Amino acid sequence: MSVLLYTEAITIDLDIGPDICDITAELDCLVEKSPITKGNLAATIVGSTGSLTTIEYEPGVIEDLKRAITMLAEPGLDYEHEKAWNDGNGHSHVQAAMLGPSICIPVRNGSLKLGTWQQVVAINHDNRPRSRNIEVTIVGTK
Amino acid sequence: MSVLLYTEAITIDLDIGPDICDITAELDCLVEKSPITKGNLAATIVGSTGSLTTIEYEPGVIEDLKRAITMLAEPGLDYEHEKAWNDGNGHSHVQAAMLGPSICIPVRNGSLKLGTWQQVVAINHDNRPRSRNIEVTIVGTK
Amino acid sequence: MSVLLYTEAITIDLDIGPDICDITAELDCLVEKSPITKGNLAATIVGSTGSLTTIEYEPGVIEDLKRAITMLAEPGLDYEHEKAWNDGNGHSHVQAAMLGPSICIPVRNGSLKLGTWQQVVAINHDNRPRSRNIEVTIVGTK
Repeated sequence: MSVLLYTEAITIDLDIGPDICDITAELDCLVEKSPITKGNLAATIVGSTGSLTTIEYEPGVIEDLKRAITMLAEPGLDYEHEKAWNDGNGHSHVQAAMLGPSICIPVRNGSLKLGTWQQVVAINHDNRPRSRNIEVTIVGTK
Repeated sequence: MSVLLYTEAITIDLDIGPDICDITAELDCLVEKSPITKGNLAATIVGSTGSLTTIEYEPGVIEDLKRAITMLAEPGLDYEHEKAWNDGNGHSHVQAAMLGPSICIPVRNGSLKLGTWQQVVAINHDNRPRSRNIEVTIVGTK
Repeated sequence: MSVLLYTEAITIDLDIGPDICDITAELDCLVEKSPITKGNLAATIVGSTGSLTTIEYEPGVIEDLKRAITMLAEPGLDYEHEKAWNDGNGHSHVQAAMLGPSICIPVRNGSLKLGTWQQVVAINHDNRPRSRNIEVTIVGTK
């Protein structure tokens, strides 16, 4: 069976970082629109102050993750980035680089294969609300 | 040469987290079973308290990584997740989200292309032993 | 349109870790050499003391990221790896495993699709200069 490609971008509005948004439904919708039922979905957030990961999207865990992200690189420390740019988001760049911009999710039987309590999330680390583009590439068979 | 797809899942039993298991041989076995000799292997752990990465699988380093993971989000802190669910694994969710669920490994000459001292590992962050499914998608040519 | 595969490796010389090098131009060059204009580029650093991510490649942010990486696993702590190997790089292994060896970048209109201030970087965490191989796999259509 021949391997097919499907690409599309989604846009998500995110609040001041760390803000965490569940994008599982949007990604699953792209899998449904694509002709692919088995393969791999690669997603990458465009921009250097965003990241992607998976988590149980439950308000408590989301707060816990926000705290841990903040501890990884706290706002208000003495960032070299500030000395040049003074835009207050040195911590945002560091946090995003450490979490990473991309993720792979398997596609099986026409849907994303995730755990019951596992959702794909986009994170804005910037110190202002951002509209984020996430590029999605699905490769697989019908 | 036409591009092919091969998918399969492996199951790994892991102990109370952080527990770290070398899955390189299992993944290499799937590459051998597949018709693909050149391309990319994407692996994703199913479930929100697991993660994948690479490391030198040597007992000392494994202990060092366990300590660093524990420091990233220590058990016993005041997690919001606990207030809702009281299942003791708030730290597990945070650790797993920060390490990330997926990885890409190149396939070259019919095998995984890794460093001599580089192994692929699955990590259980949960506060109880877990049987973990890892979905594997290999895309490439013969 | 049929899906194509293109693979190649690049080699980067890196200084004592944490050293961070912008590899965006090298990766974009591979995309140009490949017949692929739309799809996904997967890159993986070979070796257990290296990692890949994206960041704004600006001297201030680079210093800030180096500091945060060092805090994640500081050199000179009591590493179990040292007791067995005494090669001084216990922290390098831990840092690299936490950042992760692989990344996916979308290919659109014949180029990498990144933010204006977003560059792909290779990081050496080792305690000596290293020449690093990065394996690149591009899958997509003309």
